[in-house]
Amino acid sequence: MPQIITLTTDLGSKDNYVGIMKGVILSINPNATIVDITHQISPGNIKEAAYNIKTAYRYFPPNTVHIIVVDPGVGTKRKILLLETPTSYFICPDNGILTYILKDFLYYKLFHVTNSHYFLEPLSNTFHGRDIMAPVGAHLSKGIEASCFGPEIQDIITLQEKEPQQTSFNTLKGKIIYCDHFGNLVTNITKDHIPNQKEFEIIVKNEKIDKISSSYLDVEEGNLLAIWGSAGFLEISISCGNAKERLNAKVGDTILIRF
Amino acid sequence: MPQIITLTTDLGSKDNYVGIMKGVILSINPNATIVDITHQISPGNIKEAAYNIKTAYRYFPPNTVHIIVVDPGVGTKRKILLLETPTSYFICPDNGILTYILKDFLYYKLFHVTNSHYFLEPLSNTFHGRDIMAPVGAHLSKGIEASCFGPEIQDIITLQEKEPQQTSFNTLKGKIIYCDHFGNLVTNITKDHIPNQKEFEIIVKNEKIDKISSSYLDVEEGNLLAIWGSAGFLEISISCGNAKERLNAKVGDTILIRF
Amino acid sequence: MPQIITLTTDLGSKDNYVGIMKGVILSINPNATIVDITHQISPGNIKEAAYNIKTAYRYFPPNTVHIIVVDPGVGTKRKILLLETPTSYFICPDNGILTYILKDFLYYKLFHVTNSHYFLEPLSNTFHGRDIMAPVGAHLSKGIEASCFGPEIQDIITLQEKEPQQTSFNTLKGKIIYCDHFGNLVTNITKDHIPNQKEFEIIVKNEKIDKISSSYLDVEEGNLLAIWGSAGFLEISISCGNAKERLNAKVGDTILIRF
Repeated sequence: MPQIITLTTDLGSKDNYVGIMKGVILSINPNATIVDITHQISPGNIKEAAYNIKTAYRYFPPNTVHIIVVDPGVGTKRKILLLETPTSYFICPDNGILTYILKDFLYYKLFHVTNSHYFLEPLSNTFHGRDIMAPVGAHLSKGIEASCFGPEIQDIITLQEKEPQQTSFNTLKGKIIYCDHFGNLVTNITKDHIPNQKEFEIIVKNEKIDKISSSYLDVEEGNLLAIWGSAGFLEISISCGNAKERLNAKVGDTILIRF
Repeated sequence: MPQIITLTTDLGSKDNYVGIMKGVILSINPNATIVDITHQISPGNIKEAAYNIKTAYRYFPPNTVHIIVVDPGVGTKRKILLLETPTSYFICPDNGILTYILKDFLYYKLFHVTNSHYFLEPLSNTFHGRDIMAPVGAHLSKGIEASCFGPEIQDIITLQEKEPQQTSFNTLKGKIIYCDHFGNLVTNITKDHIPNQKEFEIIVKNEKIDKISSSYLDVEEGNLLAIWGSAGFLEISISCGNAKERLNAKVGDTILIRF
Repeated sequence: MPQIITLTTDLGSKDNYVGIMKGVILSINPNATIVDITHQISPGNIKEAAYNIKTAYRYFPPNTVHIIVVDPGVGTKRKILLLETPTSYFICPDNGILTYILKDFLYYKLFHVTNSHYFLEPLSNTFHGRDIMAPVGAHLSKGIEASCFGPEIQDIITLQEKEPQQTSFNTLKGKIIYCDHFGNLVTNITKDHIPNQKEFEIIVKNEKIDKISSSYLDVEEGNLLAIWGSAGFLEISISCGNAKERLNAKVGDTILIRF
């Protein structure tokens, strides 16, 4: 059985925080394989964390334990959650991080992590990634049942997210949901939104694009293009350039598809 | 026996230097589990390295080998040290990095790493992390006795660090010793310095704080707060913000506790 | 047999791209040990990738699989290559990344990776690191023969690189080929170019250096120096400083050796 634990955090790479979490995990399960998904989530940015784990988890083997530490409410009464699905486990604060993942599963169980038997002592008020989530994930990866960590619960906090909307007879209004390292602008438009045969134009930040490219070199260097990105969403890019910088774009900006 | 080797360096993440050290380690001990503590120590900053390893090592299993490569004196006659403690091993240049760790142990042995049998050849003048510290750490993790790497020594270089000081009848003067990724300001004030029942105010960069919070959300967003940080020190933070930037604070700045 | 896979990419650390590649690898070969060489190659910079893998691979054990994902041509008809050498394997796009490595081997085999049996499905147009290079590398690390992934080929794309040149009776003209995290300027001058007994001066960005130092502290703090770097090339540095910033230097800048 693979004993993989992934980490998705806003802890950055400057400090020893992530290394400490790995020390805690390996102290409990020396056979765990720990994989960094990212530690560069913007501080406290729950949507960014939710997007990054949602688009990554399916590439890991069955029984992988995913720990997500973006936790502005650490030290308050916010819960720590353990989500058990048929393929994977997720441990994170109850602040909306699981919103998109829950939609992928018909069957799952949610637990409120309360069993302090599995926590580090003394428990700090500022780093439950180290004191609760890392040790719980490590014990889980060793085969402890999810139900051992606390009672099952039903209601958790979810983010309110708008799907793309038909705003007129021939217009679909979506938005930018993520900007990556290359400056690619990931939108919430999927292939379901753009019928194969139809003509359309894409309007983003006053620029127009009239086709979907099959590679970044499909247009001349420096030109804008639209392409189906690796997460399944329509992305806006600049050939050999940075669309986020050039268009001065940000998460939440509107994208229109006019048929 | 776990064969964990941690790395704490100022080598950054842009170049292949850290990857090369890992290749050297795995060539000698393919079963080693290598954990990055951080590679973002400011170039040549010995105090930062000393703080990061001191506050991290206790979270790793017994017999972990910690390699710390912050080595502005590489190529000179500065020694390479191997510290053996009852719980862990530390390999680093003789430049003060071990200052805080030594205070944690009543019993330890220090070795001057001189046995070139364990070094890479040819030995460079610029990268002893690769040529000496990585291979020595890898051999150590395989069970070679610490005494095999060179003679025992007594005197090493230590940093001069001031503890917080009573500067008047009712005033304790401490300082900022570390600023983290979130902009939290870690001070050298511990719980021993602030008796439980006493009233006090904290003064930092002309701002006053009159209580110790139990979470970052204990005050309104954007407000300053003091909190016991995860390393056991008093920290100054901004709720949902960056205290380092807002206060224009830096390591060495004064913090006063007035009772 | 060690089953080490290294990753050298321009994918950065902000997104989940590298984590996803690791998930793909571990899904196929749970026993693989994955080592990051760097993910901070400048976006699309093939020379930087070629330099980083060329100067790193020799430090890894026999049979290591090196995956290099710097792939501006993803989605076009550019090939994916698999290079088999007596010591290591390399998987990368056919865009020049292998230029310097090929010079190290008299005997090698090149394969055009075409066998979609080993690819992820559906195949994206934007992330062949995930869909082709990671799974092919994982299968290779499990012992699948290189010839199983596609036909052998002879001709691949290589970078045109000038060696240092004698420009007059007593002058050798080289250039800066890499700038590292510390601001050290790596040149293409090697020990073969500078005979041991000869007097010389080094001219870079209008500054003169008249000796090769044996450590960064060989000159006073803040002064310029030349030193044999850890990759075997002459490097220009500032003692306790950043030569790239101070000299406003960049890759391609000229360095002269006057005898």
